[in-house]
Amino acid sequence: MARGPLALSLGEPSGVGPEIVAKAWRALSADPSLTFAVIGDASLIEAQDVPVRSIPGPAEARDVFGQGVPVLHRPLPAPAAPGRPDAANALSVADWIEEGVALTLAGETTALVTAPIAKAPLYAAGFRFPGHTEFIAELTADAPYAGTRGPVMMLTAADLRAGLVTIHAPVADVPQLITAERVRRTARVMHEAMKRDFGIATPRLALAGLNPHAGEGGAIGLEEIEVLRPAAQALRAEGIEITDPLPADTLFHPDARRGYDAVVCLYHDQALIPVKTIDFWGGVNVTLGLPIVRTSPDHGVGFDIAGRGKARPDSLIAAIRLAAAMAEGRAAA
Amino acid sequence: MARGPLALSLGEPSGVGPEIVAKAWRALSADPSLTFAVIGDASLIEAQDVPVRSIPGPAEARDVFGQGVPVLHRPLPAPAAPGRPDAANALSVADWIEEGVALTLAGETTALVTAPIAKAPLYAAGFRFPGHTEFIAELTADAPYAGTRGPVMMLTAADLRAGLVTIHAPVADVPQLITAERVRRTARVMHEAMKRDFGIATPRLALAGLNPHAGEGGAIGLEEIEVLRPAAQALRAEGIEITDPLPADTLFHPDARRGYDAVVCLYHDQALIPVKTIDFWGGVNVTLGLPIVRTSPDHGVGFDIAGRGKARPDSLIAAIRLAAAMAEGRAAA
Repeated sequence: MARGPLALSLGEPSGVGPEIVAKAWRALSADPSLTFAVIGDASLIEAQDVPVRSIPGPAEARDVFGQGVPVLHRPLPAPAAPGRPDAANALSVADWIEEGVALTLAGETTALVTAPIAKAPLYAAGFRFPGHTEFIAELTADAPYAGTRGPVMMLTAADLRAGLVTIHAPVADVPQLITAERVRRTARVMHEAMKRDFGIATPRLALAGLNPHAGEGGAIGLEEIEVLRPAAQALRAEGIEITDPLPADTLFHPDARRGYDAVVCLYHDQALIPVKTIDFWGGVNVTLGLPIVRTSPDHGVGFDIAGRGKARPDSLIAAIRLAAAMAEGRAAA
Repeated sequence: MARGPLALSLGEPSGVGPEIVAKAWRALSADPSLTFAVIGDASLIEAQDVPVRSIPGPAEARDVFGQGVPVLHRPLPAPAAPGRPDAANALSVADWIEEGVALTLAGETTALVTAPIAKAPLYAAGFRFPGHTEFIAELTADAPYAGTRGPVMMLTAADLRAGLVTIHAPVADVPQLITAERVRRTARVMHEAMKRDFGIATPRLALAGLNPHAGEGGAIGLEEIEVLRPAAQALRAEGIEITDPLPADTLFHPDARRGYDAVVCLYHDQALIPVKTIDFWGGVNVTLGLPIVRTSPDHGVGFDIAGRGKARPDSLIAAIRLAAAMAEGRAAA
């Protein structure tokens, strides 16, 4: 059983990160089976009116978790004002993520949960990755991993797990980005993750179509016939249980969700619309196919509400719980 | 008050139409405030084990509604076997719709509800319209109408009303089909329909973005900046309350839905995914911007389950109730 602490990177210091981390600790501090060690500037959390315990390493997190938020204190170079990010702090934010990855690769923490980051200050400081996911993939690229490499971004809400073939692409680019190879790689990573991280012995995948009515036999677009159905057939030939492309509007009601363990979606809103319709506050962003388990809230830094006490910790708490469950699943696999 | 009967065209005779019409009558027959007159072959409804009353005209529908399904009997030329459509019957199906339109234009019925039709037998018989909606638009083209002409297709489920700028277009064609003119016409028709048919004095419209995060300021696609925001600004200058394009994944949870009366969606699944996630069985397809009120179930003919007693009438019942409410709204406007 993977009962060690999770690593929790504090994310953008001028966003809602410190507030939701403090709120998550309040919600979870009575449960010693689920502990985390924050990596970040302890003063940001102290400012949230919660007790803080500076610890020398993650191993001490569990002992102090009932008394305060365990923090691996890594001070920022510049003050952090809510809502006003400062590029002077950006490299520290990246360092916190990097330390969380390193601790998890070393087995000192069981998984990494990342509070939201803002791209603009990171880019201003020279950060060169499209986002968290790609950065963490790079940091883990040399670690051994048995199976198909991701990263694959998957969103969860209630009983829905939706993985993405394309992520932050304009809709105009989506049709050409949906290749049989990308569909197959995404489905393989999801299939392996369902077994490895979610403890599902024989995962059932659904494949969403791209066009209205999944193309209606070719009358409304050809991607289903030319790309998606052949990809599904090839996956089944590998032993992966996956449907032919199905009309996306039929896949997300409660009865439909009982028919599969995870759905392969083709573009951002095809997954995010149902995820956020079903559970706007509690969705989780999961990265599959990496040497470490990593989850994140599915919302942004919230500069507009930072420092006002209004941020909801639901998504971060769900991300913490899911990371712990996945780490246990992976340890048992 | 528009308390006359609705016209209900029976639709494809080999589909689930006769079964769901019979089930809808069973559910509604105790309520004399809501009556309909079926236009179709009475023998198809008799085969559903419900009493049938052949009536000479819609005016008699209310008197008999408590005793049996009122039918304007229009016999088919060929037998109708469940699940096996026959093109020999297709022109009758089109005639039933045409009669429903004519009765409603003449004020003998207050609105038209259409049971599903199948395209293949209609096309085989020479029918030249993409679907119901375009056919009905053509049949009402010469009737006077004050306001912006549709047709605009709108889907409803629970408290969600979602109108469509594009309908059955392949995703690859959607970006170029989304012009400012189409967005403006769709929004105008929806705005006028909210007032005329739904009794909302000052309608609030939301506009969905096309790209992930509504383009994130141009980083993920330019349609929001180049097409959608200017269209929204122009609409506001006309006095129509509509938002700038918003991230589509934030628009459909219960809190968000309370913020607008209807949402302008850009493509089929952007509207249909939330509609069918929220209420898979009870969604309604509404045609806005025509001289008559017209609604329809949001499902197809169900050849695979026709004749087996398994079809659910929820969507047809919701379509009947909505048509009646809209007809009352329009009569009072």
